Amino acid sequence: MLEKTTRMNYLYDFYQALLTPKQRSYMSLYYLDDYSLGEIAEEFDVSRQAVYDNIKRTEQMLEQYEEKLLLLERFQERQSIVQQLKAELEPDLKHNDKLSTLLNSLEKLD
Amino acid sequence: MLEKTTRMNYLYDFYQALLTPKQRSYMSLYYLDDYSLGEIAEEFDVSRQAVYDNIKRTEQMLEQYEEKLLLLERFQERQSIVQQLKAELEPDLKHNDKLSTLLNSLEKLD
Repeated sequence: MLEKTTRMNYLYDFYQALLTPKQRSYMSLYYLDDYSLGEIAEEFDVSRQAVYDNIKRTEQMLEQYEEKLLLLERFQERQSIVQQLKAELEPDLKHNDKLSTLLNSLEKLD
Repeated sequence: MLEKTTRMNYLYDFYQALLTPKQRSYMSLYYLDDYSLGEIAEEFDVSRQAVYDNIKRTEQMLEQYEEKLLLLERFQERQSIVQQLKAELEPDLKHNDKLSTLLNSLEKLD
């Protein structure tokens, strides 16, 4: 299991399109821009508790989406295979641009 | 754009975990098992119109999920790259089992 902040950043990245605009604002300020709960509360003129409750609820929603769709788990499985492919093909990658481009596209696609 | 039945089968495959049990039942009977609306209506003791409305609504939900998460689109992009990789590596695949296994895992993972 990834460290919590890293995991939430990943889950947010995969599932943010399923959240409300308010959920997205709070989550990205808290997890991406490292705002405190108090700073977000001030920014939106709501209580610190309201921000906390909203973020906790959103974290649960993200975990529920991951339980159902497994986007992060599949992503990690694919990345692991791409890394193994790169290692296996390392001698060829230097002189084969097409191969190199294909593997890089695959890596960046997720 | 894929033919509609094929597209719905794919979208159902990717997003079925986000549907209700009733939506899953109707969709899998209609799209996977090729039941008619009338047969599904009889099976569940509801009107043909109710089944039709439920399926149309579910189709819209699946398209909305795809607009947001793009799982089918990304899947197709990855599959295309894996096919190009296989073609590029074809001469090596015969004598390199590890490479072959890695590419097959990548192809089956989605």
